[in-house]
Amino acid sequence: MSVVENTKLAIIGAGSVGSSLAYASLIRNSAREVALYDVNTAKAEAEVLDLAHGTPFTGASRITGGGDMDVIAGANVVVITAGAKQEPGQTRIDLAGTNARILEKIMPQLVERAPKAVYILVTNPCDVLTVIAQQISGLPAGKVFSSGTVLDSGRLRWLLAERAGVAAQSVHASIVGEHGDSEFPLWSQASIGLTPLREWTDDSGTQVFTRDVLDALRDDVVTAAYRVIAGKGATNYAIGLSGARIVESVLRDERAVLPVSSVLSNYRGIDGVALSVPSIVGSRGVERVLDVPMDDGEQELLQRSADALSSTIKTLGY
Amino acid sequence: MSVVENTKLAIIGAGSVGSSLAYASLIRNSAREVALYDVNTAKAEAEVLDLAHGTPFTGASRITGGGDMDVIAGANVVVITAGAKQEPGQTRIDLAGTNARILEKIMPQLVERAPKAVYILVTNPCDVLTVIAQQISGLPAGKVFSSGTVLDSGRLRWLLAERAGVAAQSVHASIVGEHGDSEFPLWSQASIGLTPLREWTDDSGTQVFTRDVLDALRDDVVTAAYRVIAGKGATNYAIGLSGARIVESVLRDERAVLPVSSVLSNYRGIDGVALSVPSIVGSRGVERVLDVPMDDGEQELLQRSADALSSTIKTLGY
Amino acid sequence: MSVVENTKLAIIGAGSVGSSLAYASLIRNSAREVALYDVNTAKAEAEVLDLAHGTPFTGASRITGGGDMDVIAGANVVVITAGAKQEPGQTRIDLAGTNARILEKIMPQLVERAPKAVYILVTNPCDVLTVIAQQISGLPAGKVFSSGTVLDSGRLRWLLAERAGVAAQSVHASIVGEHGDSEFPLWSQASIGLTPLREWTDDSGTQVFTRDVLDALRDDVVTAAYRVIAGKGATNYAIGLSGARIVESVLRDERAVLPVSSVLSNYRGIDGVALSVPSIVGSRGVERVLDVPMDDGEQELLQRSADALSSTIKTLGY
Amino acid sequence: MSVVENTKLAIIGAGSVGSSLAYASLIRNSAREVALYDVNTAKAEAEVLDLAHGTPFTGASRITGGGDMDVIAGANVVVITAGAKQEPGQTRIDLAGTNARILEKIMPQLVERAPKAVYILVTNPCDVLTVIAQQISGLPAGKVFSSGTVLDSGRLRWLLAERAGVAAQSVHASIVGEHGDSEFPLWSQASIGLTPLREWTDDSGTQVFTRDVLDALRDDVVTAAYRVIAGKGATNYAIGLSGARIVESVLRDERAVLPVSSVLSNYRGIDGVALSVPSIVGSRGVERVLDVPMDDGEQELLQRSADALSSTIKTLGY
Repeated sequence: MSVVENTKLAIIGAGSVGSSLAYASLIRNSAREVALYDVNTAKAEAEVLDLAHGTPFTGASRITGGGDMDVIAGANVVVITAGAKQEPGQTRIDLAGTNARILEKIMPQLVERAPKAVYILVTNPCDVLTVIAQQISGLPAGKVFSSGTVLDSGRLRWLLAERAGVAAQSVHASIVGEHGDSEFPLWSQASIGLTPLREWTDDSGTQVFTRDVLDALRDDVVTAAYRVIAGKGATNYAIGLSGARIVESVLRDERAVLPVSSVLSNYRGIDGVALSVPSIVGSRGVERVLDVPMDDGEQELLQRSADALSSTIKTLGY
Repeated sequence: MSVVENTKLAIIGAGSVGSSLAYASLIRNSAREVALYDVNTAKAEAEVLDLAHGTPFTGASRITGGGDMDVIAGANVVVITAGAKQEPGQTRIDLAGTNARILEKIMPQLVERAPKAVYILVTNPCDVLTVIAQQISGLPAGKVFSSGTVLDSGRLRWLLAERAGVAAQSVHASIVGEHGDSEFPLWSQASIGLTPLREWTDDSGTQVFTRDVLDALRDDVVTAAYRVIAGKGATNYAIGLSGARIVESVLRDERAVLPVSSVLSNYRGIDGVALSVPSIVGSRGVERVLDVPMDDGEQELLQRSADALSSTIKTLGY
Repeated sequence: MSVVENTKLAIIGAGSVGSSLAYASLIRNSAREVALYDVNTAKAEAEVLDLAHGTPFTGASRITGGGDMDVIAGANVVVITAGAKQEPGQTRIDLAGTNARILEKIMPQLVERAPKAVYILVTNPCDVLTVIAQQISGLPAGKVFSSGTVLDSGRLRWLLAERAGVAAQSVHASIVGEHGDSEFPLWSQASIGLTPLREWTDDSGTQVFTRDVLDALRDDVVTAAYRVIAGKGATNYAIGLSGARIVESVLRDERAVLPVSSVLSNYRGIDGVALSVPSIVGSRGVERVLDVPMDDGEQELLQRSADALSSTIKTLGY
Repeated sequence: MSVVENTKLAIIGAGSVGSSLAYASLIRNSAREVALYDVNTAKAEAEVLDLAHGTPFTGASRITGGGDMDVIAGANVVVITAGAKQEPGQTRIDLAGTNARILEKIMPQLVERAPKAVYILVTNPCDVLTVIAQQISGLPAGKVFSSGTVLDSGRLRWLLAERAGVAAQSVHASIVGEHGDSEFPLWSQASIGLTPLREWTDDSGTQVFTRDVLDALRDDVVTAAYRVIAGKGATNYAIGLSGARIVESVLRDERAVLPVSSVLSNYRGIDGVALSVPSIVGSRGVERVLDVPMDDGEQELLQRSADALSSTIKTLGY
């Protein structure tokens, strides 16, 4: 008899995002077992084999998988990366219809095989799909959420760290709202170390993060995915690490504060829409959605994100 | 010919702090080589042997050392833990005279053997000794600093994390000032995720960190060392990890923002005294001391710390 | 509802071995939760506090504990370090009586609180105590074992690596038999990379590991503990890492091959005695004791270890 | 003035192998700085951007790069992944001509910018190209080597571990010879723990690794790349980890024993050909090529590999 229920991460979709997430998870030992499923059996088996060949160089984690969905049985966390991917020029919202149909098909199959799992959507547009996945599955809101703006916040922190000349780990900042064009940084709460971002100066005492710089940084983050896609056809590495980070917070019950997207209830006047706001992520999924101070402009931007998403969700019949 | 100058950490003093710091550094691979020196040769050699026996279970780092100070030759970082230790009931300031005499003796010997190293003092009272070590050595202020309130800030973050029910990694808070009785938390800049500490509520919406709670937490941090010493005779594990963390920021040139203590010049009206304030720590040592907003009360507490230290330093003849 | 049963490591005894093992486990994230118990409440609480203060610098692991044995409830692994410690000049066997009495008292209390746990003894003389603990508890042999010669084998691999000028990770060698004076290296199976130890040469083609060198290395390992104890009064760091390594193999279900000591049945003619031989360690404890080739001399040494232990066990009334 | 020369890894080629190697290196903190170069500037910049966006979730490592080869200036290690890739059905030898031409062009440019670096070829056919790169550059044999059969050996260890039900870390086995169809496992020296592979049994005492099983495992390793390529069009993850592992042994001066391929001199009768055999890899590159016992069949297979490679090298005019 085993003394431990070892942690199992299932990844749905063996495309570049799913397989990068598996790779990052194996190297980081995010889970004891990673199961990679794809409807394309040959692809899934080849990715599993390539990943497995690397495991003698990592820790104790194992990789399994293939084209039979039963590989996910008993998973503690299921990350869904399956779906049509964003083409150059296409907005994230345009993808919604196609990927909603995919979720309608697979979500019941997944829940049947991993009924107790926490579900994390990485497929885009992730906010819209989170609402749909939660409704299809009937799971509590905390058990079905998306990676949201965790990646976007990582991009922001990298940019701020480069500009200020400090470690990214010392930059505290977050993008909230839609994972898409209407997202925005919570500048009013951002800091480097304990210095508010707006008071950060260079060696000569000059303010670094002026309104113009902040606007440019915001635009840089929002368009980052488009630029990566233009150059390499997809984004996969940073989203793989973002996903692994969220998975760890669940499987290790870390209760880290991360800007994931779950269906909100009475959050600053928003209901029934999924948006990224700082949330406590632990072994129960999203354990608490946190209130954060927003100035009037930020509150308006959040409401605008909510309205845009609400309208898309209705268009899709949810 | 080797393609790399591998990183070498020298630790002066093989007592419980020095050896715990060596242990943490080996397990974390903080440096490629750790050299542990102690005037007590038998003790140093036994600690080195015990640590070396554990290295087959860690990564690539190596441990050397003994009672000949030449073991530190060429070190990139030197951490000084040598000195009389704080007895139950004794204040950190009382230790100053004894440990100043030790520094006067060994500092020139160390600089002779590791002239390019960054020097980090862990010996208490570390703020006072930082001023003395800098004056004795004639090194630039950024090259001689102490672990200061890095440990105290860790204690604070642990307490806040436990109280709020979140990961310590999501708690941004810092103790500044003297590493000792006059230290204080910068409450005005503290946050959990992006929520200012004072606005954090429990599930029912009630404010958690009231003025009374904050005062109690501050007292808890300030008296923590005394309580640990009362129960086990010394503190070693947390200071070992704090030291390893600072060393990594130097050897990996991370430029992390850490509340270390270096001799200040024209910092909020303070000159010639070493106090812990958020600082950028990289391969050049303290690369920049950061200004942080303080309210009137905090500014007054900082000045009071400075005055107390200034008087002690003069008493010691520096 | 949590999706994962997080892994819990309980450590009995907050002396230098128990607390070093806790420290190593927290830094390595060997378990999600570490619970440290000691009959001396003040000591246990002080060690827990010191360790907890370091956790903001490590990963997601938590430390709890104190003087109430209920802190171990639900542990997946229990490591027992409690007991009188080996004094300079004292043999490991001399300790047996005292520590057997302690086990008789606490083993039932432990099993009551953590009935499903795997039990790992680190207290010396660990082979003798393993037999006793297994009999007292009535647990299957695989569920009660000791760290045995995992530490001694680490010492051997470090010595061989230093002598050959290679990474310890590339040295495959093991000490087997009693964790004590009659232990011996399995030279016939030892190798560096894929080169048998006895065929390893230096740059000039001269054999390095001659019979004389091997004999000296064996003596060096056997007397290592005595030398460490003479210099610092105890051994704690290497045994802490050895313990953490074994714990990881259980909690991550690694099935690593480690020379732990469990009660043997019909192993090369040995029955009812616990000796260290290569064993598969996974989430069920010792999952399989492995046969390894021994030459006639090695077989005789193993039998001699068994006889010595068997006689001690009978003397103690088991 | 910085106290440390931080380690820099340059990767030539931002295809799936080069970028996976960069990803693995960043996550594992294999180097302090990773510079990724590709002649296709847009591709290189997009990969760098995607990788950089993930760094807030990893440690202290940084990623830079683009289409200007000067990004590699001062690198300590240069890994070359550039080249035409193996197509389904194509043998590794067929690639030689095309990739030799690429090396002739870039090798002098690389050495000009990173004259002190250790060069590691991952481009196939790596053994042939190692000879050519060494001749073009005029660097000592130890400074120009290829990843050789490190990956193949990882594949073998994974297969053996799965079959035996043990951790891959406990499997000691290696593929030697050509990284290609004539490669072969050194079965005579392979072991699990300390049990020779051929003596390993299952729970019922039956030999597991019979001659037929060994032959099948050898074939499985040799054809593994073809199967992965058939399913996903390329291999990238395992080779990325293999490369990162080798880089670490150089940058950390580990002196691990790894089966890399360097130009051999008077090695079991072989001269002027690069083949993978166990070698000590440290900060000087291949610091020593190790002799390992081979039975007559193994010696013949090695000679056959050498002859095949020798003929290819001559065909290419070297």
